Amino acid sequence: MERRRKHWGWGYEDEEPSPEELRGAARFLADRLGFGSDEPEQAVPLSSVELPAPRLSAPDALRDICATDDYQRALHAYGRSYADVVRAFRGRFDHPPDVVAHPGDEAELTAVLDWALSACAAVIPFGGGTSVVGGVEAGAGCEGFAGVVTIDLKALDRVLEVDRVSLAARIQAGATGPGLERQLGEHGLTLRHFPQSFELSTLGGWIATRAGGHFATLYTHIDDLVESIRALTPAGVWESRRLPGSGAGISPDRMLLGSEGTLGIITEAWVRVRPRPVHRASAPVRFDDFMAGAEAVRALSQSGLYPTNCRLIDPREAELTGAGDGRHALLMLGFESAEHDVEALMTTALQCCGDHGGAWERRGAGAGAGAGSGDAAGSWRAAFLRAPYLRDVLIAIGVLSETFETAITWERFPAFHERLLSDVSGAVREACGGGSVTCRFTHVYPDGPAPYYTILAPARRGAELEQWAQVKRIASEAVIDGGGTITHHHAVGREHRRWYDRQRPEPFAVALRAAKAALDPSGALNPGVLIGP
Amino acid sequence: MERRRKHWGWGYEDEEPSPEELRGAARFLADRLGFGSDEPEQAVPLSSVELPAPRLSAPDALRDICATDDYQRALHAYGRSYADVVRAFRGRFDHPPDVVAHPGDEAELTAVLDWALSACAAVIPFGGGTSVVGGVEAGAGCEGFAGVVTIDLKALDRVLEVDRVSLAARIQAGATGPGLERQLGEHGLTLRHFPQSFELSTLGGWIATRAGGHFATLYTHIDDLVESIRALTPAGVWESRRLPGSGAGISPDRMLLGSEGTLGIITEAWVRVRPRPVHRASAPVRFDDFMAGAEAVRALSQSGLYPTNCRLIDPREAELTGAGDGRHALLMLGFESAEHDVEALMTTALQCCGDHGGAWERRGAGAGAGAGSGDAAGSWRAAFLRAPYLRDVLIAIGVLSETFETAITWERFPAFHERLLSDVSGAVREACGGGSVTCRFTHVYPDGPAPYYTILAPARRGAELEQWAQVKRIASEAVIDGGGTITHHHAVGREHRRWYDRQRPEPFAVALRAAKAALDPSGALNPGVLIGP
Repeated sequence: MERRRKHWGWGYEDEEPSPEELRGAARFLADRLGFGSDEPEQAVPLSSVELPAPRLSAPDALRDICATDDYQRALHAYGRSYADVVRAFRGRFDHPPDVVAHPGDEAELTAVLDWALSACAAVIPFGGGTSVVGGVEAGAGCEGFAGVVTIDLKALDRVLEVDRVSLAARIQAGATGPGLERQLGEHGLTLRHFPQSFELSTLGGWIATRAGGHFATLYTHIDDLVESIRALTPAGVWESRRLPGSGAGISPDRMLLGSEGTLGIITEAWVRVRPRPVHRASAPVRFDDFMAGAEAVRALSQSGLYPTNCRLIDPREAELTGAGDGRHALLMLGFESAEHDVEALMTTALQCCGDHGGAWERRGAGAGAGAGSGDAAGSWRAAFLRAPYLRDVLIAIGVLSETFETAITWERFPAFHERLLSDVSGAVREACGGGSVTCRFTHVYPDGPAPYYTILAPARRGAELEQWAQVKRIASEAVIDGGGTITHHHAVGREHRRWYDRQRPEPFAVALRAAKAALDPSGALNPGVLIGP
Repeated sequence: MERRRKHWGWGYEDEEPSPEELRGAARFLADRLGFGSDEPEQAVPLSSVELPAPRLSAPDALRDICATDDYQRALHAYGRSYADVVRAFRGRFDHPPDVVAHPGDEAELTAVLDWALSACAAVIPFGGGTSVVGGVEAGAGCEGFAGVVTIDLKALDRVLEVDRVSLAARIQAGATGPGLERQLGEHGLTLRHFPQSFELSTLGGWIATRAGGHFATLYTHIDDLVESIRALTPAGVWESRRLPGSGAGISPDRMLLGSEGTLGIITEAWVRVRPRPVHRASAPVRFDDFMAGAEAVRALSQSGLYPTNCRLIDPREAELTGAGDGRHALLMLGFESAEHDVEALMTTALQCCGDHGGAWERRGAGAGAGAGSGDAAGSWRAAFLRAPYLRDVLIAIGVLSETFETAITWERFPAFHERLLSDVSGAVREACGGGSVTCRFTHVYPDGPAPYYTILAPARRGAELEQWAQVKRIASEAVIDGGGTITHHHAVGREHRRWYDRQRPEPFAVALRAAKAALDPSGALNPGVLIGP
């Protein structure tokens, strides 16, 4: 029998910790954070939830692939932002989709889309459902429609073709991170796009939202790994040529990348893959403080060395994740290659760190054996992948947990960061009475970093959404007023619309609205996201 | 007094060779090629040309910056494709612009644009006028308008701001390659975007056409160096934020990159610059044939070494440019860095070449002194920059000279290349009775090369345009039928429209037409390019 996803949080139902395990985790976390209850709350079971009756029913021909049961509707009601999980945890499902379709192939997808459009329904494409920005919620923007059909692409999960010569693969949009890596692995290849949502999120979702992945430099977004895209639109099939590069007008792929389901439903893509790396070098580098580390990272990002990993973590965040001692900023620096030794690159990069006050110890340096990763890097990596699970526990013990990310040029970064920390810490104190705001760089560019902020604060049970909204608003204002982007890789969705509208050039918005209206005249595709009311 | 550009060909009037010099060059070229007359023809002087009377006249307030004289109208009548230069050489100017405006700043540009739109004129933005695809010609698409106003941006030529911390600069759209490099050089910085048109072409033109530059890998197009763009549209000013990276919806910059003047007039951009390289290593590597070289380049492009220069030249083209002996394919391989020694990278890359049958000699390897470039590389580089001048001479001596470029994935490249050579050689034989078709890679990607083809053939004086059209059609059909892109970095313009329309996804065309109609309701901006009749 197929494993069932948890309807309210991360992962699968069979992964739920036992009450004892949960209490143990609660004690550990509350102790480490200094807040949070060691008596965890329980999620409202789905059996106690009453959903509004579905307003649509699929025609007979589609009934087998269109569900209207409470579990499917609840599972597809939200993404996995803090506010999403809190609402689902408390059994609050005000606007679930009316119908959840699971097409098995593109023909069924076309049939579902045709029916939904003819039924005047809004259509929400759904990959892994891991949006943290309200990207898959039947919320704002869906009001004027006869109902909402969420189309889950999970059945389109195959690697269809592998081109070993060009190192590219044609992959269906619903393939998850582990699913596509397993299939590519049979050919000795890998995409190496590892967002934090990797376990559940999908290729189509990554492309629609311009997801950020594993590589800290060069191939920071899925954009950089896409060779061509195929999508269904109400105006027909949109499929670009497989091209390693092109200068033929505006890039059609770049118009689907970041379209967030508003222009069409991505069904498959050719992506650039690579052999699994066999040469690796990595080391955690300590700096006296975050700004000293930032200067080193700036030098590295402008050096042309292109480290694979270059994640700078501030002292408090390093401590919270068990990677650091709380007194030093930590840079996770790493190189990898399938082709050639990377020790020389690592040595040059470490020299650069040393020039900027960095200190490191390397153990077992050399190829093979995940060399030189050290305990700090290992701890931090494990924490990175555990984080989505952890959040469910944090909610259960009354800890507000929110992250947001941006990008800013280097010369503005120090003042930007200072103001952001000040504004957001103030908001957290006001809303929650205390808590921490920490920062790391997830990706770096020659002209600036992509800082990622994590908020952990005591929540007041039942008032979390108001607390969260207050903090989120202040953080977003600070990002936009400071000249940053409202998102570096989490996407816009419905949560960021207000600030996104201030960020984008107005004539671009005019162009985008017109493009959308031409492709999707009824505005049915993911209404309220990027464009529209 | 300001130097005047040649109204019919490349460069400046004061650079015209004397009749003796021209005859000398003619003898040399005809001898080397085996065709072409050693008695060069003379261009029709502008004084013998009768242009159609201008249909528009600028209002008094704009008269000082709006020219209607024959020289300005002829100079702005064409780009610099083979067909353009032939027509101008023969004094054929059927559709010159009616008015040529030279705004001195954005306010004047706005005034010119407002007037032109109110006068129901078509508007053609003009940078260096080096388009080889009919991108600046008042040709197809302009028929329905009351006239044509070409807006020359040459006065907007300044580097306005330099951000040394983030390594970025704000530069006006009309700055030419040498102009912006000179200004950046005062800060010890460089853009290092060196298309073949470098001497005359402009930043705005590069962005509008997604120009290809110096870097053979990673930063192949100007796209990759753009941080933000400012443009005037009929719907207002389009200005994006300076961001090192973003995931906020569809990229607004990517919608101006490649827009070819159809959505707005680019006025300035923030671009990523870098310190001048001080560490360099380069070597010409010989291969037995082009396909052996291609396999080596594939390995290099997939190695993660990212050579700065990686240009593979087939034996005949190497010979014609004086870089090779005609029996070997030649790979111009090079690394450069401002920060660190590149010898280790070069050594690894040469090993990779050796594994694929490459042979090389290195002289004076090491940092400084333009090390190890060798005579072959030097000859080839000089020929590269001389090429646009050379073309004027070739036309004078009756040699047809055409280039086209594309990109294709590695696994399709051998068959694609073979068919292309066969089809185009056949067309050249049929149209010209002989001649050569040669190839080089200008840029390479992990998933495929960007091959660039050069045709040299005997022209029949007075029949060149028909010969050219026949060859161009066959080449473009072969590119599109073979799965390539109609252009890797020359743009679409009016010449490539027919094939571009087959290449692009139809729903994308629908979106683009709608976006254009919303921004530019009268369709006045560069009509006939990308979109429209």
